[in-house]
Amino acid sequence: MSGQVYGRVALIGLGLIASSMFWAMKRAGLAGEVTGYARSAETRGTARRIGLCDRVCDSAQEAVQGADLVVLCVPVGAMGPVMEDIAPVLKPGATVSDVGSVKRHVIDAVQPHIPEGVHFVPAHPLAGTEHSGPESGFAELFDNRWSLLVPVEGTDPEATARLRALWEGMGAHVDEMDADHHDLVLAVTSHTPHLIAYTMVGVADDLRRVTDSEVIKYSAAGFRDFTRIAASDPTMWRDVFLTNKDATLEILGRFTEELFALQRAIRTGDGEHLHDYFTRTRAIRRGIIEAGQDTDAPDFGRGQKK
Amino acid sequence: MSGQVYGRVALIGLGLIASSMFWAMKRAGLAGEVTGYARSAETRGTARRIGLCDRVCDSAQEAVQGADLVVLCVPVGAMGPVMEDIAPVLKPGATVSDVGSVKRHVIDAVQPHIPEGVHFVPAHPLAGTEHSGPESGFAELFDNRWSLLVPVEGTDPEATARLRALWEGMGAHVDEMDADHHDLVLAVTSHTPHLIAYTMVGVADDLRRVTDSEVIKYSAAGFRDFTRIAASDPTMWRDVFLTNKDATLEILGRFTEELFALQRAIRTGDGEHLHDYFTRTRAIRRGIIEAGQDTDAPDFGRGQKK
Ligand SMILES: NC(=O)c1ccc[n+]([C@@H]2O[C@H](COP(=O)([O-])OP(=O)(O)OC[C@H]3O[C@@H](n4cnc5c(N)ncnc54)[C@H](OP(=O)(O)O)[C@@H]3O)[C@@H](O)[C@H]2O)c1
Ligand SMILES: NC(=O)c1ccc[n+]([C@@H]2O[C@H](COP(=O)([O-])OP(=O)(O)OC[C@H]3O[C@@H](n4cnc5c(N)ncnc54)[C@H](OP(=O)(O)O)[C@@H]3O)[C@@H](O)[C@H]2O)c1
Repeated sequence: MSGQVYGRVALIGLGLIASSMFWAMKRAGLAGEVTGYARSAETRGTARRIGLCDRVCDSAQEAVQGADLVVLCVPVGAMGPVMEDIAPVLKPGATVSDVGSVKRHVIDAVQPHIPEGVHFVPAHPLAGTEHSGPESGFAELFDNRWSLLVPVEGTDPEATARLRALWEGMGAHVDEMDADHHDLVLAVTSHTPHLIAYTMVGVADDLRRVTDSEVIKYSAAGFRDFTRIAASDPTMWRDVFLTNKDATLEILGRFTEELFALQRAIRTGDGEHLHDYFTRTRAIRRGIIEAGQDTDAPDFGRGQKK
Repeated sequence: MSGQVYGRVALIGLGLIASSMFWAMKRAGLAGEVTGYARSAETRGTARRIGLCDRVCDSAQEAVQGADLVVLCVPVGAMGPVMEDIAPVLKPGATVSDVGSVKRHVIDAVQPHIPEGVHFVPAHPLAGTEHSGPESGFAELFDNRWSLLVPVEGTDPEATARLRALWEGMGAHVDEMDADHHDLVLAVTSHTPHLIAYTMVGVADDLRRVTDSEVIKYSAAGFRDFTRIAASDPTMWRDVFLTNKDATLEILGRFTEELFALQRAIRTGDGEHLHDYFTRTRAIRRGIIEAGQDTDAPDFGRGQKK
C-alpha cells in the first residue's frame, strides 16, 4: 500500500477531493513532491497555512511544470478552460487525470487540449462528504471506497496502471468503466438522488404554514438526511446537472413515473401495492451493507451509542 | 430526570418504539411495573428471552389490566382494533396514549372506543431508526429528540402533564401540537421524504442496464442514504401513507411542481436557477445542526475517523 508512484504530482483546485488526495498520498508516501493551485488567493493562503501541498503556486501553469501527474480537481464545468490553460507547459510523457463526477463531458472538454505525448486518464473517486473547501479533506476519505478509471480510446495501458496504483495506494478499490455507462450509473446512484433531496428541502423551505423553525426542530429521520445531501456545494452540483443532462433527465423520467404510480396507490388506498413496493427495496440496502459500502449501525451510528 | 411517574405501564406492540420506551423507563425508574404484549408468539418469546418488560402477557387485555398508562405501539392502521379489544378492561382513571406517526387518523380510530373516565393523550416521538422489532430498541433513542403530544378536546390537563413527565424522563423534549398541523408537518419532514426515498431505490432496482451489483458497489453519497430510509418497515409505512393521505398528497404535489421546474432548468441549461436553488437549501441544514438535531460530522460521522 505504499512506495512512491509518481515523482511530482500537481493538484489543480484545492477543495475536498484534492485536499483528501494530498493527505492520502502523504500517508502512504506515494508522491515525491505535490504542488497545488487554487483559483482564489484566499484558498491558496489557507492551503499554505495548513500545509496543504508541499508547494502552493500562484498559477496553474507554474504548478504543473515538471509534473508527472496532473489531477484536475475543479468543478466539472471548469475542467476544459483549466486544461486549455495548462496544455502548453505540460511535461512530455506526463499524465493528466481528473476527479470530476461526470465523465463524458469532461472527456469532450479536456481531450482536445491534450498535447501529443501526454496521457489522459479520466477518473472519478466515489467518495465525498457534504463539506467542501481546502480544510475539509482527510486522508481516510477514499479508504475502502471505489474509484472508477475511465480510459479513453488509445490510452497507454502503462499510464492507466500507474494511476490505478496511486488510487489503490490512497486506499481505494479501482474499477474501469466506459464513460457513458459511468454517467448513467452515477445518475442513478448519486446525481438524481441529489436533485431529489435538493427539491424536497426546497419544498420545505417554501411552505409558509410549516414555519422554518418547525421544519428544523421536528426534522425527523428522512428529511434530516435530505438536508445533509442538499448542503453540498451548489457550483459542483450545478455543473453536474448541466453536464450529465441526458442521463439525469432519463432517470428523472423513470422516477416520476414510479412516483405517480405510488401516488395513485395512496389516493386509491391500495395498501398491497405500497407494501409490496416497500418490501422490494429492502433487499438493496442489505446488499450495500454486505458489500461493505455502508454501516449497519442504526441511523448510521450517528449521535450516542446505539 | 428520574423518579416514578406511573405505577404500572402497559406496552401494546413490542417493536422498536416500545422496546426503546421500556429501556428508557428502566434507565430512569419511571414506572413501577411494565407489562407488554405483542401479536405473535415469536415476538413475545423474544421479549421474554431478552428481558423486555417485567411481564410479557399472552393477551392485550391481560397486559392492560390494572395499568395506569397504556401505550399503543402498533402500526397506525392497527390502533383502532387494538383499542376496541382492550377498552372493556381498562382501569378507571387510566390514561391511554399511542406513538403512531399519524395523529388525526389515530384519534378518529381510537377515541370512539375510549371508555368514560379513561383519559386519551395521543403522542408521537420524533425518533427512530430503520430497524424494527423487539431487539432493535435502546434506552438512548429519545435523548434530545422531540416528542409531540396531541391532546384532544377535553383532555384532562393533569393526564397530559403526567405523560409529559414520562417523555421528559425518557430524555425527550416535549411540545404540544394540533393533530392536523402535526400531520402536515410530518408529511414534510418525514412521510414525503420516505416515499421519495422508496421510489428512488425502486427505480434503481428496476433498471436492468445498471445491474444490481453496480448500484450496490457504486452506491455513492445520496443513494446510499436513500437505501437506509427505504429499508424501514413496510407495514408501518404502508399505514402511514394510507392514513395521512391528504397531507402526503398535498406535499407530493408541491414536490413534483418544484421538481419539474428544476427538470426544465436542466433541460434548458439554466445554471443560474440551479445554483440559486442549491444555495437556498443550505441554510436549513445549518439550522438543524444549530438546533442540535443532527451531527455536523461529515457524512454523519459514519465509518472511520473523519
Ligand atoms: N464533493 C464530492 O463529494 C465529490 C466526490 C467525487 C468527485 N467530486 C468532483 O471533484 C471535483 C472537485 O470537487 P470538490 O468537492 O473537491 O470541490 P470544492 O471543495 O468545492 O473545491 C473546488 C476547487 O476548485 C477550484 N475552482 C473552482 N472553480 C474554478 C475555476 N473556474 N478555475 C480554477 N479553479 C476553480 C476552487 O478554487 P477556490 O477555492 O479558489 O474557489 C476549489 O479549490 C468536482 O469536479 C466534483 O465533481 C466531488
Ligand atoms: N420506527 C420509527 O421510526 C417510528 C418512529 C416514531 C413512531 N413510530 C410509530 O410507532 C409505532 C410502532 O412502530 P415500531 O417501529 O415500533 O414498529 P415495529 O418495530 O415494527 O413493531 C410493531 C409491533 O406491533 C405489533 N403489531 C403489528 N400489527 C399488530 C396488530 N395488528 N395487532 C397487534 N399488534 C400488532 C408487532 O407485533 P409482532 O412483532 O408480533 O408482529 C410489533 O410488536 C407505529 O405506529 C409507528 O408509526 C415509529
